[in-house]
Amino acid sequence: MSPASAPLPAAGQRGPAEHAIRAQIVEAARLHFRHYGYDKTTVADLAKAIGFSKAYVYKFFESKQAIGEAICAQTLGQISAAAEAEAGKGRTAEDKYRRFFRAIVDASADLLFNERRLYDIAAVATRERWPPYLAYLDTLFAQLRTIILFGRESGEFERKTPVDETCRAILQVMQPFVSPAMLEYTLDQIHDGPTEVVSLVLRSLVP
Amino acid sequence: MSPASAPLPAAGQRGPAEHAIRAQIVEAARLHFRHYGYDKTTVADLAKAIGFSKAYVYKFFESKQAIGEAICAQTLGQISAAAEAEAGKGRTAEDKYRRFFRAIVDASADLLFNERRLYDIAAVATRERWPPYLAYLDTLFAQLRTIILFGRESGEFERKTPVDETCRAILQVMQPFVSPAMLEYTLDQIHDGPTEVVSLVLRSLVP
Repeated sequence: MSPASAPLPAAGQRGPAEHAIRAQIVEAARLHFRHYGYDKTTVADLAKAIGFSKAYVYKFFESKQAIGEAICAQTLGQISAAAEAEAGKGRTAEDKYRRFFRAIVDASADLLFNERRLYDIAAVATRERWPPYLAYLDTLFAQLRTIILFGRESGEFERKTPVDETCRAILQVMQPFVSPAMLEYTLDQIHDGPTEVVSLVLRSLVP
Repeated sequence: MSPASAPLPAAGQRGPAEHAIRAQIVEAARLHFRHYGYDKTTVADLAKAIGFSKAYVYKFFESKQAIGEAICAQTLGQISAAAEAEAGKGRTAEDKYRRFFRAIVDASADLLFNERRLYDIAAVATRERWPPYLAYLDTLFAQLRTIILFGRESGEFERKTPVDETCRAILQVMQPFVSPAMLEYTLDQIHDGPTEVVSLVLRSLVP
């Protein structure tokens, strides 16, 4: 591959992004953080555990946060991929929206219950607005926009409100069950809460 | 006052609740926590700072949290009182709801910006579901229910959805701008966010 066609490395990452070693470090770090937690691990601990020198790890990532961001991007990418796949199964716009919301809640709750350490990284990313979290929000917004436009086309949803305002407001009201910074405080309502919020949102979309 | 007519002390509080010393301890603790923070202060520090013995403070409160709860009840009570007063100024149900939501957001944001230490106690109360926080939610629910019923009576709002479901869902979607555990993460959207959420809620209430 000529230098001109190599993808640009993302912020905080050093060297060509496609480098296999990079993926290897991220995978090893993910397993390490899963057991020992993100906060308590230094780059030195991590390098030692995965059998590289600290200097070598720094060739690929400028900081621990850069590694955390790469892991977080993977984690959040899995949630948005699940949401996309579920929305695709819906026939009507209403069904698509219900599936979209439920898939995000289920995947996020699954992470919280089964991968607490990875959830905690996502929660830090949310609170500190790391780039992968902002990218995740952009992805959800685009997916939601597709559903809303589909429902406007089919005549299921109202068309008076500017579509971007509709999408911003809906994403906003989903936050308590979607945001990794909030979900853990709404767990007691995780069965009926999302269903009632979905119904409220659908009532707001009636033409 | 005969013992039979004395009010029962709230959980975690010792001695008759009307005792003037109790109010004095709460006020002194509020001022102390405001400067030094809740986490870093022990009951011993507090007693010393306000000129009482530790044993004397324990006569009135069984723990630091009991004092924290009393302060939190005051703080949250001020917010719900502001919401009640604002809602009362509205002519229509729509106007009442807009004022209600805006008053809560403004009072909560004011606490966050100007009384950060007291906000932090409210945030702990929210995360740990202290009784004053649960009582605050009950109060907001009752206030909201009054507004919704007013709007159903006047014909402004739909009547098909069970009223308690409507109120639960609305209170839920307000959370990102209302909950002391969430507000600090939605501050970047505090100008347009609540307005767009209010509009979504009002669209959901159309008959």
